[in-house]
Amino acid sequence: MRDFLPADVRRREYVIGVIKGVYERYGFEPLETPAVENIETLMGKYGEEGNQLIFKILKRGEHEKTGQADLALRYDLTVPLARVVAQYQNELPKFFKRYQIQPVWRADRPARGRFREFYQCDVDVLGSRSMTVEAELIAAASDALVALDFDDFEIRLNHRELLNGFLSAFGVPPEKQADALTTLDKFERIGRTGVAEELLQRGISVDATVRMLDYLDKLRKIESDFHQLTNIVHPPTKQQIVASVNDQVNPELLKMLRTDLADYPTAQLGLNELDSIIGLTKATGSSGRVRIDLGLVRGLSYYTGSIMELSVSGIGSLGGGGRYDNLIGMFAKEAVPACGFSLGLERIIVVMEERDLFRSRLDIGPADVMVTIWDEASILESLKLASELRTGGLRVIFYPEARKPSKQLFYADNRKIRFRIIVGPDEIQSGNFKVRDKRGGEETLPRKEIAVTLLKRLDEDAKTLKKRNEGFQAIIESKVTDPGR
Amino acid sequence: MRDFLPADVRRREYVIGVIKGVYERYGFEPLETPAVENIETLMGKYGEEGNQLIFKILKRGEHEKTGQADLALRYDLTVPLARVVAQYQNELPKFFKRYQIQPVWRADRPARGRFREFYQCDVDVLGSRSMTVEAELIAAASDALVALDFDDFEIRLNHRELLNGFLSAFGVPPEKQADALTTLDKFERIGRTGVAEELLQRGISVDATVRMLDYLDKLRKIESDFHQLTNIVHPPTKQQIVASVNDQVNPELLKMLRTDLADYPTAQLGLNELDSIIGLTKATGSSGRVRIDLGLVRGLSYYTGSIMELSVSGIGSLGGGGRYDNLIGMFAKEAVPACGFSLGLERIIVVMEERDLFRSRLDIGPADVMVTIWDEASILESLKLASELRTGGLRVIFYPEARKPSKQLFYADNRKIRFRIIVGPDEIQSGNFKVRDKRGGEETLPRKEIAVTLLKRLDEDAKTLKKRNEGFQAIIESKVTDPGR
Repeated sequence: MRDFLPADVRRREYVIGVIKGVYERYGFEPLETPAVENIETLMGKYGEEGNQLIFKILKRGEHEKTGQADLALRYDLTVPLARVVAQYQNELPKFFKRYQIQPVWRADRPARGRFREFYQCDVDVLGSRSMTVEAELIAAASDALVALDFDDFEIRLNHRELLNGFLSAFGVPPEKQADALTTLDKFERIGRTGVAEELLQRGISVDATVRMLDYLDKLRKIESDFHQLTNIVHPPTKQQIVASVNDQVNPELLKMLRTDLADYPTAQLGLNELDSIIGLTKATGSSGRVRIDLGLVRGLSYYTGSIMELSVSGIGSLGGGGRYDNLIGMFAKEAVPACGFSLGLERIIVVMEERDLFRSRLDIGPADVMVTIWDEASILESLKLASELRTGGLRVIFYPEARKPSKQLFYADNRKIRFRIIVGPDEIQSGNFKVRDKRGGEETLPRKEIAVTLLKRLDEDAKTLKKRNEGFQAIIESKVTDPGR
Repeated sequence: MRDFLPADVRRREYVIGVIKGVYERYGFEPLETPAVENIETLMGKYGEEGNQLIFKILKRGEHEKTGQADLALRYDLTVPLARVVAQYQNELPKFFKRYQIQPVWRADRPARGRFREFYQCDVDVLGSRSMTVEAELIAAASDALVALDFDDFEIRLNHRELLNGFLSAFGVPPEKQADALTTLDKFERIGRTGVAEELLQRGISVDATVRMLDYLDKLRKIESDFHQLTNIVHPPTKQQIVASVNDQVNPELLKMLRTDLADYPTAQLGLNELDSIIGLTKATGSSGRVRIDLGLVRGLSYYTGSIMELSVSGIGSLGGGGRYDNLIGMFAKEAVPACGFSLGLERIIVVMEERDLFRSRLDIGPADVMVTIWDEASILESLKLASELRTGGLRVIFYPEARKPSKQLFYADNRKIRFRIIVGPDEIQSGNFKVRDKRGGEETLPRKEIAVTLLKRLDEDAKTLKKRNEGFQAIIESKVTDPGR
C-alpha cells in the first residue's frame, strides 16, 4: 500500500475528475459505501481464491483474544452495491444508474500497477435487461479513456451463455464447465500448452480439449488475418479499422458461431445479445472499438450474461465488467437485473505516466503567489495582504519566518511559485506593491488591483485554467470522440 | 458505518470541495495515505483508550489461524502524517503545508454525528515554530466554516505549557499533571463536582483541587460578565463582539494569568505564544473569533504547545488541533516542529442539515436531459442523439426500454430531470426536435443547437452554475469574511 505525495494526489484527482465527469454525463449518480463490511456479506462471493485474499478484522474488546473476525475490508464495489440495492429498495429508483469511485483491498502479491489498496471506478445499471445498458457502459468507459487521451484501446466482448453453449457443443459436461472456464481464463498467462495440460488434469477429454483449442485458434486467426492484410497494404486509418471491425470481423465471427452452435439455444441467445450490443454501440463513441472474443472469460463467478474487457494494445486490461442478474437476489427477496463496468485507476495512471499523458498540466506548485516578510515588525502586514489576496481567489503562501528576502525567494523558486510580492515599508505606506513574475517582468500594482490582475494572468495560462476548472468543465473542453460517426 | 446514497454523496462532496478550496488558497498541498498502517505505527500514540478503539486486521494465509494482527485501520490523519514526513524527508520540502481529507476508523460507540467510519479534514504545517503557523491554521479553519455559511462559531485557544505551569502553581506535582489534565478535560461532560471527585480520586490534594476549580470559575466569569453586560444594554453588533474579544476579554485574561503565574517560566512562554497568535489572527478573517480558554485541554497526549478548538454556539466542537513538536521525532532521527487543525466532516454536515444550509443548491437530479425512445426500431436514433448531447457537455439519460412515452416522462418527473426531448419519426427525419422544459414551455430546436441552447439555460440557473463549477470556483464566489477588518 502506498502514500501519495502532492504531485501523485493531483494526478489521481485529475483522472478521477475526468472519469467522474464522463460518468455523470451518462446520468450515473454517485454512491459510497463503508470500507468495512460484515464478513458474511463478502465471503463466498468471489470464489475460493477471493476468500483467501480478503482482509479480515478482529472482533473488538474482550473478543479480541478469541482471534475471530466479524468484519472485512471491501474487496470490490459490486458486492457492496448488491447489498445496498437490496437494503434500500424503497429509497432507490427501480431503474438506477450509479457510479462509485472508492478503494478496495486485496491481500494479493503486489506487481506493476497492482497494489493491495487500489481504486475501482465502477458504473453499474440496476433494473433493466435491455442491451442498451451494456452499450452505455461500454460507451462510458470508452469516452472516459478517450477523455484521458487514450486512443489505442479496444473492448473485447463475450457472453457467459455463449461460453456455456460452446463448452456443451465440444462435449464438456455442465458440471465441469465452471472448471473449464477457470482454465480457459488463463490462456494469456500460460499459453495453449498450459491450458491444454490443465484441462486434461481437470478431467476434460483429450478430444474435447484439442477441438476446443483448435476452434479458438481459428477464431483468433480471422481477426489477425484481417489485421495483417490491412497492415501489409498500408497502415489503415482509424475509419478503416472502425469500418472493418464493424462490417467485417464482428459479422464474420457472429455468422460462424451462429452456424457452428446452431443446436445450442443458450449460445444463440448469447449471440443475439452480442449482436444487439454491437449494433447499439455503433451510435456511440465506442463504435469500431468493440470486438467479439470467445476467448474472453473473466474470473468472477457472479456473471450471468455479457462480459467485457477494455484493453490497451501492448499493455493489457484497464478494466472490465459484465452482467450479473442473480447477485442482488442473494441479498434481496427478488432478483434485480444488473450490469456493470469497472475501470482500474492505478493501471490507468501507470500507463498515463509511461506515455507522458499528464504532460505539465498539473505542475501548479503549492501556490500562485508568495508574499514576502520584510521583518518581524511587519509580519502582520504580510499576513493581512495574504488574507486579502486569498479572499480575492488566489492561492497564497508566505515563508513563516522573517528570513533574508533571498532565502524566501529561493523557496518560491524551488516550489514553482509564479508570482512574488515584496511587502516592504515603502510598499506598505504607499499601498503600491511590486509584483514579480517568475517568467520575467515586474510591475507595480495598487493593493486593490493585485488579485484581479494576477487571476487574469493565471487564466491566460491555459494549463492553469484547465487545472482550475477541473472536474466537469475539464470534460466539456477535453477532446472526446465524436459519436455517431 | 453508513452507506451514502446520491443525495448524501453530493452534500459530502460539496462540503469537501469548499474546505479543499479554502485550504488550497492557503498553499496547503494534498496528501493521501493508505487506510491500513502497520499496527506498531499506531499503538501507543493515542493513549490507553485509543489502543482499544483501533480496528486490527488479522494476518493473512496460514497465520490467520493464530488470531494475530499485524495491520490496523487508520485512527487519525496525524500519526500517518508523522510517519510520512519521517519516511520521505528527502522528497518533501523542509517547510511543508499539507492537507488531507480521508476517512478514519474508531471502534467507538456511535452517537449523533459520531460514527465508526468518519472523515477528517486536516491541515498541518511542518518545519516551523513560528506562531504565524497557528494563526494560519485558525484562519483557514475559520474561512472554511464561513464559506460553508456558518457565522456563530469561536475558536478557543490554550497552551499545554501554560496548563502545566498552572497545575504547578496550584501544587499539582509534575508526575500527576497528565492525570489532572485528563480529568479537567471532562469538565463539560461531568461538571465541577464530577471533576472535583475525580481529581481527589487521582490523589490531587483537596486544597489544590478547590483552588484550581475556583480559579477556572473566576476566568469563566470574566467572559460571561462581559457577555451579560453587553447583552443587557443592547444586542451587540458583530463589530462590537470582535472589538471586545480582541480589546477587552483576551487582554484581561492574559494580564491576569501573567500576574498570577509570574513565577512559572513555562506558563509565561505559553502566554507569550498565545499573545502572538491572537495578535496575528487580527490580520485574518478569524479576527475576534479567537478566545483564550484555560479550561480547554484536548484529549490527545501528543500536543506540546498551543491547542485550539472550534465550536459553534449551542452545538459544540466541529474541530480542533494544536502543536505537536515531538511526534515526528518518534519516527525520524530528528524532531520536526509541527502544528495542525482538523475539521470533522460528519459533524459539520449534521449541523448544516439541521440549519438547512445546503438549501436546494444540490437538487440537480441524475441528469439535465431525458431523451425518449419512440419504439424498438428507433432506439439507435435516441442513443445517437444522447451521445451527441453528452459530447456537447450535457448530462443525458434515457429510459432503457421502449415503454409508453407517458411512462418515460413519469420517470423524468420523478427523478427531477428538467428537459425532455421527444425522438419520434418526424423529428428524426426533419432534424428538428421538440424540447420540453419541466418549468414550462416547449421549443423546437435544430439538432446541432440543442446542446449549446440547453447549457445556456442551465447556466442561467445560478444554482446549477454553482454546482457545475464546484470546487475552487465555488470558493471564489462564495462569501468569505473580509479579512483585515
